[in-house]
Amino acid sequence: MILLEGIAASPGIAIGKSLLKLEKEIEIDKENIENDQVEQEIEKLHNALTESKKQLQELKEETAEKLGEEKAEIFAAHLMILDDPEVIPAFENKIKDNKLNAAAAVKEVIDEFAAMFAAMDDEYLRERGSDIKDVGMRVIKNLLGIEDIADKMDEEVIIIADDLTPSDTAQLDTEKVLAFVTKEGSRTSHSAIMARSLGIPSVVGVGSELIEKAENGMKIIVDGNSGKIYFNPDKSTLDKYEEKLEEYEAEQERLKAFKDKKAETKDGHQVEIVGNMGNLKDVVPILDNGGEGVGLFRSEFLYMDRSELPTEEEQFEVYKEVAEKMGDKPVIIRTLDVGGDKELPYLDFPDEMNPFLGYRAIRVCLERDDIFKPQLRALLRAGSYGNLKIMFPMISSLNELLAAKEKVEEAKAELKEEGLEYNPDIDLGMMIEIPAAVMIADKLAREVDFFSIGTNDLIQYTVAVDRMNEQIAGMHTPYHPAVLRMIQKTIESAHAEDIWVGMCGEAAGEELLLPFLLGAGLDEFSMSAVSILKIKEVLTKWTLSEAEEVSKKVLNLGTVADVKDYLNKIKK
Amino acid sequence: MILLEGIAASPGIAIGKSLLKLEKEIEIDKENIENDQVEQEIEKLHNALTESKKQLQELKEETAEKLGEEKAEIFAAHLMILDDPEVIPAFENKIKDNKLNAAAAVKEVIDEFAAMFAAMDDEYLRERGSDIKDVGMRVIKNLLGIEDIADKMDEEVIIIADDLTPSDTAQLDTEKVLAFVTKEGSRTSHSAIMARSLGIPSVVGVGSELIEKAENGMKIIVDGNSGKIYFNPDKSTLDKYEEKLEEYEAEQERLKAFKDKKAETKDGHQVEIVGNMGNLKDVVPILDNGGEGVGLFRSEFLYMDRSELPTEEEQFEVYKEVAEKMGDKPVIIRTLDVGGDKELPYLDFPDEMNPFLGYRAIRVCLERDDIFKPQLRALLRAGSYGNLKIMFPMISSLNELLAAKEKVEEAKAELKEEGLEYNPDIDLGMMIEIPAAVMIADKLAREVDFFSIGTNDLIQYTVAVDRMNEQIAGMHTPYHPAVLRMIQKTIESAHAEDIWVGMCGEAAGEELLLPFLLGAGLDEFSMSAVSILKIKEVLTKWTLSEAEEVSKKVLNLGTVADVKDYLNKIKK
Repeated sequence: MILLEGIAASPGIAIGKSLLKLEKEIEIDKENIENDQVEQEIEKLHNALTESKKQLQELKEETAEKLGEEKAEIFAAHLMILDDPEVIPAFENKIKDNKLNAAAAVKEVIDEFAAMFAAMDDEYLRERGSDIKDVGMRVIKNLLGIEDIADKMDEEVIIIADDLTPSDTAQLDTEKVLAFVTKEGSRTSHSAIMARSLGIPSVVGVGSELIEKAENGMKIIVDGNSGKIYFNPDKSTLDKYEEKLEEYEAEQERLKAFKDKKAETKDGHQVEIVGNMGNLKDVVPILDNGGEGVGLFRSEFLYMDRSELPTEEEQFEVYKEVAEKMGDKPVIIRTLDVGGDKELPYLDFPDEMNPFLGYRAIRVCLERDDIFKPQLRALLRAGSYGNLKIMFPMISSLNELLAAKEKVEEAKAELKEEGLEYNPDIDLGMMIEIPAAVMIADKLAREVDFFSIGTNDLIQYTVAVDRMNEQIAGMHTPYHPAVLRMIQKTIESAHAEDIWVGMCGEAAGEELLLPFLLGAGLDEFSMSAVSILKIKEVLTKWTLSEAEEVSKKVLNLGTVADVKDYLNKIKK
Repeated sequence: MILLEGIAASPGIAIGKSLLKLEKEIEIDKENIENDQVEQEIEKLHNALTESKKQLQELKEETAEKLGEEKAEIFAAHLMILDDPEVIPAFENKIKDNKLNAAAAVKEVIDEFAAMFAAMDDEYLRERGSDIKDVGMRVIKNLLGIEDIADKMDEEVIIIADDLTPSDTAQLDTEKVLAFVTKEGSRTSHSAIMARSLGIPSVVGVGSELIEKAENGMKIIVDGNSGKIYFNPDKSTLDKYEEKLEEYEAEQERLKAFKDKKAETKDGHQVEIVGNMGNLKDVVPILDNGGEGVGLFRSEFLYMDRSELPTEEEQFEVYKEVAEKMGDKPVIIRTLDVGGDKELPYLDFPDEMNPFLGYRAIRVCLERDDIFKPQLRALLRAGSYGNLKIMFPMISSLNELLAAKEKVEEAKAELKEEGLEYNPDIDLGMMIEIPAAVMIADKLAREVDFFSIGTNDLIQYTVAVDRMNEQIAGMHTPYHPAVLRMIQKTIESAHAEDIWVGMCGEAAGEELLLPFLLGAGLDEFSMSAVSILKIKEVLTKWTLSEAEEVSKKVLNLGTVADVKDYLNKIKK
């Protein structure tokens, strides 16, 4: 048995078989073949091509069915490449003319194509170069008898990877994933957020030992509560975890009682417990877990895995669908937050030394009507189909907020002029995630309908600590007294202007922090779907005045340790 | 006449001849020579070697005389390379065996040496590789008849460069520099800070036009007040600027009256006006300009341009020298602030995505006794020779501050045990440059003797804007209402605990901001030497209660524009 430890990124326990998704270089031996071997290599090539097409056809159909036509497009594009009249002869000629074995011939051709496309100025064509590389590698894998990960998921597995990007997970059959375990990452990395949104356990940041020790098909226990992973567990460990898994499932069952209950304290003080979402599929777990709305809809997914900006119509359809699915429940959609760690290949952002302190989110949108306007128009139009609210990210000054509101007014005027239906009274809000916004919250509160505190970024800037930097990751915590005082100051300033305050950072779903946030006056808690029921339950254990006492005490403590000790002591 | 505009980085006017310091690649033609040319190329080589040695000898002597023996060591090292018994034959053999012209032969040899050294694990040896490259390029320049910049400064010049690093300026004869103009950079980049510390005008961030349009030996006007640069100015412009230069010099003369006056308001409220310094030489301009002490001594220069950490003794000598030179005037020495944009080659820092939010300053020192202890011991010992104070950078939590103080106690205990003389009562202070520190200033104030607000970083984190990022440079301003409120909050918290507050960021020297800072209660203003006299003069125009009114009004304004408009309106 091998025990490894990482960061507990998404709660729950999984027991299952490992499937490795690693970025290992495939070794292709380059052999010079004799004249009489040419025909044999060409035959091998055609078998691999046939097999590749068959796989792509299956992947395309499965993906369309499970994740929608849009996600399936990538495989359609790959199929088209294998039908391209230039591609197959290029492979064949390389075998014939250069007397190369099939795998080496395909590799040389895709390298040539890739270099040609990479040199092109057009971003779309450059991306085609990377498609050719992908599909070529599939042909090579078939030539060498190496299975592709997407083909291997015929049973439920625990994915082990260096790290997972949003586009990686697009190719995974998430219904068959029991857990994610990654070498890199932190609680706020994409794979961690994805795991919580899917409601599956996850341990991240395990370190290089993970990759050294893991093999495909090992029996693995993933404990997403403690951050422990066991390879080939012994009998007693396995028994213990099977029992824990049962208990966990029993707790899940018990918590279901809270699904349709209002979120309120012991003494009837109501707050809103809502969910964070990153793509359309996330609506289901939010509703299944009794979410009273959506506190943060990250609109970035609409802009990812594509070669150009989404049109107003495309966005409108998505926003309308969410609005309709949520009925009269509120849905807060955050306008595009790119830059920082989130780059879009078709937007040519400059390289920056400190991207988290750079040109991103509202700073980009206010300069780029071609990006901002179609999104605002789509949001205003979709606002007629449900309870949508618009939220601006990364506001650091009153000027920026006023400029963003002005853009909304312009969009309204355009829609009116064009006779299109829209919601003229849509609520506007902003993220509080930059310390400057906290300091002038009194001024900002007069200009919006609500605030939502983004703790991940707020901690990052307040403590000057990159949340992705593993060397100082321990410093990134919502229990820092300075962060708690900023939260309190924000709520106080907002309430003085009669607007409500939500929180959509990770901290909103932390059981330990709940009495503080409640006592400080937080009105809305937006979290991963997986945390909603538990937080609803904890809420019922407190009265508002008890929580207010807690809050007052916490605000006078000086260190993270003091805060945590106190909150652990009074935990119910 | 060509007019270009950049960022006014250091005030004053200069009129003079341009000298370009550009990173252009030198083109070396590789020629295959005949047998009968070998001797001729070897002769050329030896002439170039002789010339190179002569130049290096002169540079070594001049540098030792003007900047001290330490700065001259680099040239001594270069001379040794040219005397190395392996080097000259390597050049000769390359000419003989490969039938190459001398310049190409030298280039091949230095490339080989450089590659060999670069592959070595030892940082010291890697640096020797770069010395070999430097000295080889000098030989090549002599072969090709290209002058080295350090040799061309036989008259006063205006330096035009892509950017200037601290080690670039070490090789310049700063007495002959009338002004710096750079393509890159911002008000807080090294060349800007260097220019202010030398008291010469500077315009930075001019953009690529600067390099396109500039030629060596052009007549140039640099207006460090407005950010304008004129190439080959016409008669009327030149006349106008010669007049301005005279006026400027007359004002400088007039301000001298403030040199020995105490810094106080019209109604006798005293504050301290002190200087920022980056190396030993800066003591002179601070005293010449009537500085009442040193508010920030950046200790980094002791760690730069070397291959290993400075010893305790080396540091002790420097701190003692500053303390003695300043007599009973206070000297605040900031402990090492590396990481971020300041890397030391011999400390192997990890690459970071956002170095400004990373592993730097006190975060490094608290984990590295081998760095921190010798510095603290040197400071405590030097504390017996004057009015030294120790200041910790980048404090973001009470824990860090307590840990740093604990290290000071350990150092004291060691010194006592060893029977060495030291100041047991040395004042300890900390920078306020991270928003978290502002929010818990009440807790921190109980643990130190003083605060010093570092506006450059404080703005950066408060507004989430990298001060080096040109795309959003306009957002980095001390006039942001959130920053002004943080300053006020810091002073209020400090005074409630009876400690004093200084400011050592760029904002402390801004004339426009003075009434606000004065009214908010700032006790000490630390700035570039060049600003001291002017700020002393402005101070005499205000009474404390007038300034308090200004401060109160400013704190209620919502935007940068409103703040600036108001301050301009009431400016005296």
